[in-house]
Amino acid sequence: MPVRSEAESYTIEFQPVGIHGHCPAGKSLLDCARQLGVGINSVCGGAGTCGNCRVRVLNGHVSPVTTQEHGYLSPSDLKNGWRLACQTYPAGNIKIEIPPESLSAPQRTQVEGLHVEVRPDPVVDSYRVSMTPPSLTDMLGDADRVVQTLNKQLVKPCTLVDFTVLRQLSMRVRELGWECQVAVRSEELIALDRYPSRRVGLAVDLGTTKIAAYLVDLDSGKTLAKRGATNPQVGFGDDIISRLSSAMKSADAAHQLQETVVRSLNSMIEEMCRETGTQPGQVLETVLVGNTAMHHLFLGLAVDQLSRSPFVPAVSSAIDVKASNLGLRITPGGYVHLLPNIAGFVGADHVAVLVATKPWRYRKGAVLTIDIGTNTEVSLSQGGKITAVSCASGPAFEGGHIRHGMRAMPGAIERVRISDGTIQYQTIDGAPPIGICGSGILDSLAEMYRAGIVDERGRIQTSHRWVRDGGNGREFVLVEAKGDNREIVITQGDVRELQLAKAAIRTGILALLENAGLREEEITRVIVAGAFGSYIDIASAISIGMLPSLPLRRYRQVGNAAGTGARLALLSRKERKRAQDIAARTHYLELAGVPGFTQTLAETTHLGKYRISRGKKSPL
Amino acid sequence: MPVRSEAESYTIEFQPVGIHGHCPAGKSLLDCARQLGVGINSVCGGAGTCGNCRVRVLNGHVSPVTTQEHGYLSPSDLKNGWRLACQTYPAGNIKIEIPPESLSAPQRTQVEGLHVEVRPDPVVDSYRVSMTPPSLTDMLGDADRVVQTLNKQLVKPCTLVDFTVLRQLSMRVRELGWECQVAVRSEELIALDRYPSRRVGLAVDLGTTKIAAYLVDLDSGKTLAKRGATNPQVGFGDDIISRLSSAMKSADAAHQLQETVVRSLNSMIEEMCRETGTQPGQVLETVLVGNTAMHHLFLGLAVDQLSRSPFVPAVSSAIDVKASNLGLRITPGGYVHLLPNIAGFVGADHVAVLVATKPWRYRKGAVLTIDIGTNTEVSLSQGGKITAVSCASGPAFEGGHIRHGMRAMPGAIERVRISDGTIQYQTIDGAPPIGICGSGILDSLAEMYRAGIVDERGRIQTSHRWVRDGGNGREFVLVEAKGDNREIVITQGDVRELQLAKAAIRTGILALLENAGLREEEITRVIVAGAFGSYIDIASAISIGMLPSLPLRRYRQVGNAAGTGARLALLSRKERKRAQDIAARTHYLELAGVPGFTQTLAETTHLGKYRISRGKKSPL
Repeated sequence: MPVRSEAESYTIEFQPVGIHGHCPAGKSLLDCARQLGVGINSVCGGAGTCGNCRVRVLNGHVSPVTTQEHGYLSPSDLKNGWRLACQTYPAGNIKIEIPPESLSAPQRTQVEGLHVEVRPDPVVDSYRVSMTPPSLTDMLGDADRVVQTLNKQLVKPCTLVDFTVLRQLSMRVRELGWECQVAVRSEELIALDRYPSRRVGLAVDLGTTKIAAYLVDLDSGKTLAKRGATNPQVGFGDDIISRLSSAMKSADAAHQLQETVVRSLNSMIEEMCRETGTQPGQVLETVLVGNTAMHHLFLGLAVDQLSRSPFVPAVSSAIDVKASNLGLRITPGGYVHLLPNIAGFVGADHVAVLVATKPWRYRKGAVLTIDIGTNTEVSLSQGGKITAVSCASGPAFEGGHIRHGMRAMPGAIERVRISDGTIQYQTIDGAPPIGICGSGILDSLAEMYRAGIVDERGRIQTSHRWVRDGGNGREFVLVEAKGDNREIVITQGDVRELQLAKAAIRTGILALLENAGLREEEITRVIVAGAFGSYIDIASAISIGMLPSLPLRRYRQVGNAAGTGARLALLSRKERKRAQDIAARTHYLELAGVPGFTQTLAETTHLGKYRISRGKKSPL
Repeated sequence: MPVRSEAESYTIEFQPVGIHGHCPAGKSLLDCARQLGVGINSVCGGAGTCGNCRVRVLNGHVSPVTTQEHGYLSPSDLKNGWRLACQTYPAGNIKIEIPPESLSAPQRTQVEGLHVEVRPDPVVDSYRVSMTPPSLTDMLGDADRVVQTLNKQLVKPCTLVDFTVLRQLSMRVRELGWECQVAVRSEELIALDRYPSRRVGLAVDLGTTKIAAYLVDLDSGKTLAKRGATNPQVGFGDDIISRLSSAMKSADAAHQLQETVVRSLNSMIEEMCRETGTQPGQVLETVLVGNTAMHHLFLGLAVDQLSRSPFVPAVSSAIDVKASNLGLRITPGGYVHLLPNIAGFVGADHVAVLVATKPWRYRKGAVLTIDIGTNTEVSLSQGGKITAVSCASGPAFEGGHIRHGMRAMPGAIERVRISDGTIQYQTIDGAPPIGICGSGILDSLAEMYRAGIVDERGRIQTSHRWVRDGGNGREFVLVEAKGDNREIVITQGDVRELQLAKAAIRTGILALLENAGLREEEITRVIVAGAFGSYIDIASAISIGMLPSLPLRRYRQVGNAAGTGARLALLSRKERKRAQDIAARTHYLELAGVPGFTQTLAETTHLGKYRISRGKKSPL
């Protein structure tokens, strides 16, 4: 083993929490995580005797496997990169995945959404079937017996039995004494269970960064349980483009991307079922929404054509896929319904937001619907016409590409105020600050601008006492290192990232308005959807010029409306149909084809409140 | 290692050829096989350097793996029991599988069937689709583009794209330059290929002992290639009952039974495709027929209820299963259609025979249709009414449970004549005799009876010069050991097996006639279907009382009519529909419920020509 200087240090990135930093050589992964403020479970305190600190090495070199680890990790675990954090030492720059069960404090994800009432009318119907058992004078096949008895109750006969149901049917009907409950979807028998049995469905909003899942009672329409989690694909890249590149590298990588999301959904399903006393076999249908890339990666569809102009999806229409074809553990005969995509980068998630928020209800108005994320979708609804754009806002608002950025977890700074020469901040759960999440980053920029620490063009001012030269440019010290506190700064690079992100959104909004011949002040309502959108301070977003300067009462933050749309499509045939209508009639506007796009993008990087029209800015 | 006497000998059974015998200890499996007349490939002459003599140990103990074997067998091969025959020595009684590629002379299986003309009208239609590629002003999803272009040609629109097709569609349409041929089944797009592409289908008759497969051109109706093979499930048991018992032992065993047939079919498909220059992706549909047990084992359906009174199938109706769900390598989106079952032991294979032979065409007659096999199905068609029975004839006619019985392979005695004090026999391909196959066994019994070597009750007569006491009872020496010739005998036990087998068939026939109020002489036609049925000498079958004593011209041997029925259902929607009608209107008669069944069974074990009515026999 080469002699190693203790002064040597490595870059360590922890996913899915999104924290990265430097750690001196000679520290275990458990110690590195603690130093960067990431809590990993460890009951034995690092002795290698509890097995709680399981992590996965995604890339880079680490120390050899120890005897202790063999006691907690199978050969296949080890082959897949699993290690105990307390027994493993970096031997270079590395990237580590911390699975949810090893994480001591969960990440805050947005599962709260708009509450919309709907009369339950799901696509899956259930019937009680009581049969006369077979005998030597009545030797009809078991499946035929079930279907013939069932069809006496139906107007439109059931003509098909799911193959996995068929394989178990003979055993099941005997166990149940020829009295059962069957679930029918279109003309297909998709599940057979004890009578009476609960009917449950799953709604999923699959975001680039976050997953929100809802277990919904199909009879009452009530949400029985909710779960939020980080999309584990972040280990393959923060943003959509790097995620798609990973998938294109090899069929194996594409398969891993698909599998990792399904595994995550399966554990969410399992947890929610346990919490509510539901059997996974009682989950009869799933509706999943996501942007086009997430939709494709979840299904394992080809993405090459999605990554190259003209950015065409493999499929735009709504589709139904057997859950078993995807490895999703609901009832084996059940389906996953995916809402339709509008275009390459305006996906089913935006359709779901529109289903949930129904902007056409504001009859005479011009309604802007914005779902802010790594990719931001904006649509303008006016007089029954809907036009949509997609803005490459990037991962900055999720804490990505920001020096001390992190996802929304305990210890993340989420609010910042600078007044009277003091900096005030608020962290999630009041924990000691370990980084800044999206809303905190947005607030920081707004407050720095207001306090004159950055100018309109985003240049950090040397004159300020909290500003210093960080070697790679100026940086603003938001939190000073003191006691256990880690130093947290906003760099000139961070400010540039934010400027690009917010300019992308504002440019998209402007393109829609110009296309419709409207001025910003003619917008009657702005619906801000999405996890990030519901935590941000709208006033801050306006003050840096990300959102149009309109009276605050025209804004409405609706939380995870995509999740709500998925729930509506799960519960109601009518809403599911409506999603198809919306997708069919929404016009997609390709920003790259809008005249003056680049100029507008450049202009809107400027901070401050302003109006802009045809690339010309007028300050307010 | 214990000292072993060279005098020690082991019982060795070779499957699927069905040969078993004793071999002295100290001989390799290759030598044992040669001694019993079974040809195993070996280029190196037993030196362990060619790897041609791969066999699989199904059960029993053998010598340890040698260094030579490691060069030809992977660890997983070894784990699954694969060995080189020249390197392996029995260490007890053993059962060995010889895979087709290691067998030097192929088994004769029946693939020739009735020729029936039909106008091709298959369930799969093909269309040419020429599309305008997407652009920045036309970003419709790829699958939507294909379907929308296709639907302009269709009256009933295509509404569904198979998921495996969808996963590859984007790549494929680009490779093909937006010009392709699609296959549509009902409303589903199941394949996408280059235009123009051949349309082919597969028809399979899956027998308990034999598999016959036909590659059929869906446009011309022509059979492009045929293949016969032994059903590899024989390794799990010769007859249906032992096959079902194997499947019930564990889910794993059931899975193996399913997998082994599919593997065998896949290699038949591969060979036929290679022979005809067809791509497996051009095979768009499969029709498979088999008895109910084979049908269930092929699909992996539960069989417990099939093995216990009242012997109910998991499903009686015709069903369609995605080939990919079964592991069958035709086009991944294609279906396997299984014709309907009539009852627990009258399966889709008999329906197929009826579809092929159409007994209702003989308007005024009473037509008996017999498919002789390990399980023999008999039906009586009269005035539009069809009644069917199932007879447990057992494996004797396939060479099973017969001392020197074997399947129909080169060297099997297939014809026997005893006259003027000499025994004449004919072997398959004129090879030196190594055993007796079904038709030879039947002939032997008939000739032995005619020559007075057995009496009416089946007792072998001591007085005869070719009869001796074999230790376990009397035996008739059919072939004397001379030079390389192995001795071949018919034992008293063999005669008993044959009596039971033929009595089962005759009893089934009688039960049908009595049920219809007919006498044997009122039968106007007897259709004898099946591999065995087409090789037997009908006069011999009559002379031992297996078949009714009717003028020979009323008999018709039609070869593999089940295979022909499968081909018809593959080629024609009308014939497929007809199969469903036949299954629905055929009445199943359970022999166990027929009064006097046991008595009739006892009476019909007698040899000789006779009429029988209500259990009373009248000699002719």
